[in-house]
Amino acid sequence: MAEIETFDNPHPARPYVIRHVAGEFTSVCPRTGQPDFGRIEIEYVPGPLCIELKSLKLYLQGYRNEGLFYEDAVNRILNDLVSACRPRRMRVTGRFNPRGGIRSVVTAEHDAAGSGQ
Amino acid sequence: MAEIETFDNPHPARPYVIRHVAGEFTSVCPRTGQPDFGRIEIEYVPGPLCIELKSLKLYLQGYRNEGLFYEDAVNRILNDLVSACRPRRMRVTGRFNPRGGIRSVVTAEHDAAGSGQ
Amino acid sequence: MAEIETFDNPHPARPYVIRHVAGEFTSVCPRTGQPDFGRIEIEYVPGPLCIELKSLKLYLQGYRNEGLFYEDAVNRILNDLVSACRPRRMRVTGRFNPRGGIRSVVTAEHDAAGSGQ
Amino acid sequence: MAEIETFDNPHPARPYVIRHVAGEFTSVCPRTGQPDFGRIEIEYVPGPLCIELKSLKLYLQGYRNEGLFYEDAVNRILNDLVSACRPRRMRVTGRFNPRGGIRSVVTAEHDAAGSGQ
Amino acid sequence: MAEIETFDNPHPARPYVIRHVAGEFTSVCPRTGQPDFGRIEIEYVPGPLCIELKSLKLYLQGYRNEGLFYEDAVNRILNDLVSACRPRRMRVTGRFNPRGGIRSVVTAEHDAAGSGQ
Amino acid sequence: MAEIETFDNPHPARPYVIRHVAGEFTSVCPRTGQPDFGRIEIEYVPGPLCIELKSLKLYLQGYRNEGLFYEDAVNRILNDLVSACRPRRMRVTGRFNPRGGIRSVVTAEHDAAGSGQ
Amino acid sequence: MAEIETFDNPHPARPYVIRHVAGEFTSVCPRTGQPDFGRIEIEYVPGPLCIELKSLKLYLQGYRNEGLFYEDAVNRILNDLVSACRPRRMRVTGRFNPRGGIRSVVTAEHDAAGSGQ
Amino acid sequence: MAEIETFDNPHPARPYVIRHVAGEFTSVCPRTGQPDFGRIEIEYVPGPLCIELKSLKLYLQGYRNEGLFYEDAVNRILNDLVSACRPRRMRVTGRFNPRGGIRSVVTAEHDAAGSGQ
Amino acid sequence: MAEIETFDNPHPARPYVIRHVAGEFTSVCPRTGQPDFGRIEIEYVPGPLCIELKSLKLYLQGYRNEGLFYEDAVNRILNDLVSACRPRRMRVTGRFNPRGGIRSVVTAEHDAAGSGQ
Amino acid sequence: MAEIETFDNPHPARPYVIRHVAGEFTSVCPRTGQPDFGRIEIEYVPGPLCIELKSLKLYLQGYRNEGLFYEDAVNRILNDLVSACRPRRMRVTGRFNPRGGIRSVVTAEHDAAGSGQ
Repeated sequence: MAEIETFDNPHPARPYVIRHVAGEFTSVCPRTGQPDFGRIEIEYVPGPLCIELKSLKLYLQGYRNEGLFYEDAVNRILNDLVSACRPRRMRVTGRFNPRGGIRSVVTAEHDAAGSGQ
Repeated sequence: MAEIETFDNPHPARPYVIRHVAGEFTSVCPRTGQPDFGRIEIEYVPGPLCIELKSLKLYLQGYRNEGLFYEDAVNRILNDLVSACRPRRMRVTGRFNPRGGIRSVVTAEHDAAGSGQ
Repeated sequence: MAEIETFDNPHPARPYVIRHVAGEFTSVCPRTGQPDFGRIEIEYVPGPLCIELKSLKLYLQGYRNEGLFYEDAVNRILNDLVSACRPRRMRVTGRFNPRGGIRSVVTAEHDAAGSGQ
Repeated sequence: MAEIETFDNPHPARPYVIRHVAGEFTSVCPRTGQPDFGRIEIEYVPGPLCIELKSLKLYLQGYRNEGLFYEDAVNRILNDLVSACRPRRMRVTGRFNPRGGIRSVVTAEHDAAGSGQ
Repeated sequence: MAEIETFDNPHPARPYVIRHVAGEFTSVCPRTGQPDFGRIEIEYVPGPLCIELKSLKLYLQGYRNEGLFYEDAVNRILNDLVSACRPRRMRVTGRFNPRGGIRSVVTAEHDAAGSGQ
Repeated sequence: MAEIETFDNPHPARPYVIRHVAGEFTSVCPRTGQPDFGRIEIEYVPGPLCIELKSLKLYLQGYRNEGLFYEDAVNRILNDLVSACRPRRMRVTGRFNPRGGIRSVVTAEHDAAGSGQ
Repeated sequence: MAEIETFDNPHPARPYVIRHVAGEFTSVCPRTGQPDFGRIEIEYVPGPLCIELKSLKLYLQGYRNEGLFYEDAVNRILNDLVSACRPRRMRVTGRFNPRGGIRSVVTAEHDAAGSGQ
Repeated sequence: MAEIETFDNPHPARPYVIRHVAGEFTSVCPRTGQPDFGRIEIEYVPGPLCIELKSLKLYLQGYRNEGLFYEDAVNRILNDLVSACRPRRMRVTGRFNPRGGIRSVVTAEHDAAGSGQ
Repeated sequence: MAEIETFDNPHPARPYVIRHVAGEFTSVCPRTGQPDFGRIEIEYVPGPLCIELKSLKLYLQGYRNEGLFYEDAVNRILNDLVSACRPRRMRVTGRFNPRGGIRSVVTAEHDAAGSGQ
Repeated sequence: MAEIETFDNPHPARPYVIRHVAGEFTSVCPRTGQPDFGRIEIEYVPGPLCIELKSLKLYLQGYRNEGLFYEDAVNRILNDLVSACRPRRMRVTGRFNPRGGIRSVVTAEHDAAGSGQ
């Protein structure tokens, strides 16, 4: 995976909210080898660092040929982004296109003050 | 009914949310014998197990020739899924097409910590 | 008015939610004698009984030639349905088409544990 | 301004909600003399009296040639309606068309039990 | 930047809400020198002063040739508007057009009674 | 049925187009006795006379308790309106709400220069 | 398949258009045995006979357990309806839900004066 | 009515199309004295002159207190604009808000090469 | 590229229309190496053969790691599909996601009776 | 203005259609000095050359500080693009945001076989 770059939060004293929506996520189903498609939504309250957008794009492109379940993809993205920017809290949502007539949404959350959702 | 298969929750420590929306549900009205159509929405916080998508599709197809009321269908699906994957909590919603100019929605919920809605 | 029929709640132990949306409600304005049109939404947590859909359709058709205000219609429907099925709680909403460039919505609620909204 | 007429609340014991949306509000900008256009939304829990719809239409038409700011219009409508029908609580929202690429929304609220928003 | 003008709040005793949505915001990316486009939403409960709309338009136009990050733009607009009109509370949201397939939203809030979000 | 009133076409030399859309049409199914609901669209190039709107409303209300098929309703409305205002051409469309999961649209046309569609 | 019933065209002299949209069509994929779902649209200019709606509903329900390709389904429905009501012209369109990320539409047409599309 | 100002067509050799949509038109019903609201759409191929936008706005505001039928308003606007800018062709459409549940659209057209629609 | 499979047109005498919409197309920009995303729409009148859906899905997946311009992709898909099924006519449209604030659509057409668009 | 770059049409024998939609166009009103905003749509059948997307983006950005009327902007863009790529035909449309409650659309067209619209 490409490294997630950051820059210094220009307003670190105020707990404000940043949201990035990446509509062009694709990975590979670990069972069938068929491509999956979806949208990744990232919402966080920054701590000392903000996520740099171009590196986020390249990081998400790194899943293009990875085989993994939806549940795993969303949790791994959350873990990587939390490690990179140490936010006060962060939530990652994946909205995946229908397969067999069923569409799926997975949402995971990190809270620096507590843990999990 | 087809058996609901599961796989190990890849991130069991974090209470995250999974949502599946199946837009192609059909069953039969127990009074008139006419087909009913609707959409089944399943949202849950997994415990030790996640629901496998293909088996979920086959399980829901099992209602295709069953005669039952909307209220019964939603509660039975909830009971079967809870038995299969033992979630921390789960909510099942059925949104059914209009009959006689009236459309119907039924929502039932299970909470492992308490009970019912 | 046609009688509202009921059937035994198939899952009486669980407090789940049922919602019916009837898009074809019409009554008569008590002042002008002109027809009014709107949509009636009924949401309830059933007690021992569920409302049978066909009888609900016929009951609502009974307002076709009745002259009454929006505020009165919604409250009367709530009272009649509460009497018929004794729900844990119920909310009735009427959304009425514009008259003189103004559209109106009326919402009333019954709670068996307390009273009113 | 035309007088706001009322009628007796037909269900005074139950605290239910009434909402009127008037899409055809127009007044005049006090600075430029140019017409402003918008939508007025009124939501209230009636006390002893309900607002009669036709008189509400005529009352709102009374602003057609009045010069006043958005903030003033919404608060004055709230004050006049509260005086006329003494509701348990009421909220008035004005949604105004863009001027200079900026659209505006103003919301004010009255609560008989307390005061302000 | 153009100065933000204000006028006396015509209803200072009541804590009501004002919302302005400016759909035509543009600035310049500090890295690439390319123009960015977005929508700025301002929602506040006025204190003694209200923001005058035309001066708000001119103030926002002042960013047209400024190079700054989304996160910086939203926080600076919030700071400037709070200084100009001393609101009870204010929230500024910037919704920016996609770059590299990712669209971004930044939201910051000021509360005179406390601080930050 | 109420009589359809007309007024003199104020610009008879120019063949312009008038369109009225009545969203609140209701009649009765001749087989089941159940109410039907739909929308009637009328588009015409006036000859010497224009249709007066209030009388059109009352005319369409006259179908409220009539039992007739969709196909018959649309053709009868076309015939009555053509007789009343002698247009250069006219088209009437009825869009009816779903019955048994099937919604229906019927369109009939009159052309003074020729005939039928 | 259930027989398609007809009734006499009440306005046979005028070539008007009738359209029925059935949103609840389901059949079975002849390769996988999995259910397919779609919407069938029928538009025709009646000759001596009109299609009776309830029998149309029952006829379309007859495909519920049939295994056939989309292309075959649409052409067979067209052939059966043309035989039943001998229209001046008729077009049948099937809009089918996505399979493998691809949704399909098939349209076939009959013209009594000529043939095919 | 305010005078409609024009400016020289900057590309008179090419027959291109200009369209202006004014969403805030209001006039007065000549029968009831009640305000009417609608949207005026103007589409034309300019001849030697283009319509200046600010004067168009002021011209349309001139109808604010005029009593006239929809059919008359649209034709008068077309006549005035044709006189002011002598276009190759022009079409004016008025889309008016519902009255008595019926909304209306009127369209008139001028063609310098011929006449009428 | 995977081979495009076909099956015999079940109704070869009638010139009907088949449309497939594949929403999950992705390829690579030949200049930047960045992934592109879009939707491919295929509409054709079959000759002796119809395109088999699963092989179409696999064929389109073959572009996942190909570097080519939008204009080239659409024309190559058209050429390959025409070779595979020899349609009476076919049109392929690619709708591609915005890059640098600009979204693109490319449409190419084959007509067995003539040629090109 | 930046130069518009081109590349060789990869399929010059087939007259296919290319469409680019640039949603982030801004220029300056020549009368008021205020910024204008709009969307530029370009549709053409390429001759020997295709327009390169990145240079198109930079060319359109060149209008950011230009003062010109809508009618002029659209015709100048058309002239410049025709000179750069010599298309078989091309149409340019500008859709501009409302000013004074009026939004505008300008469309101009070039046809190599004839001229103008």
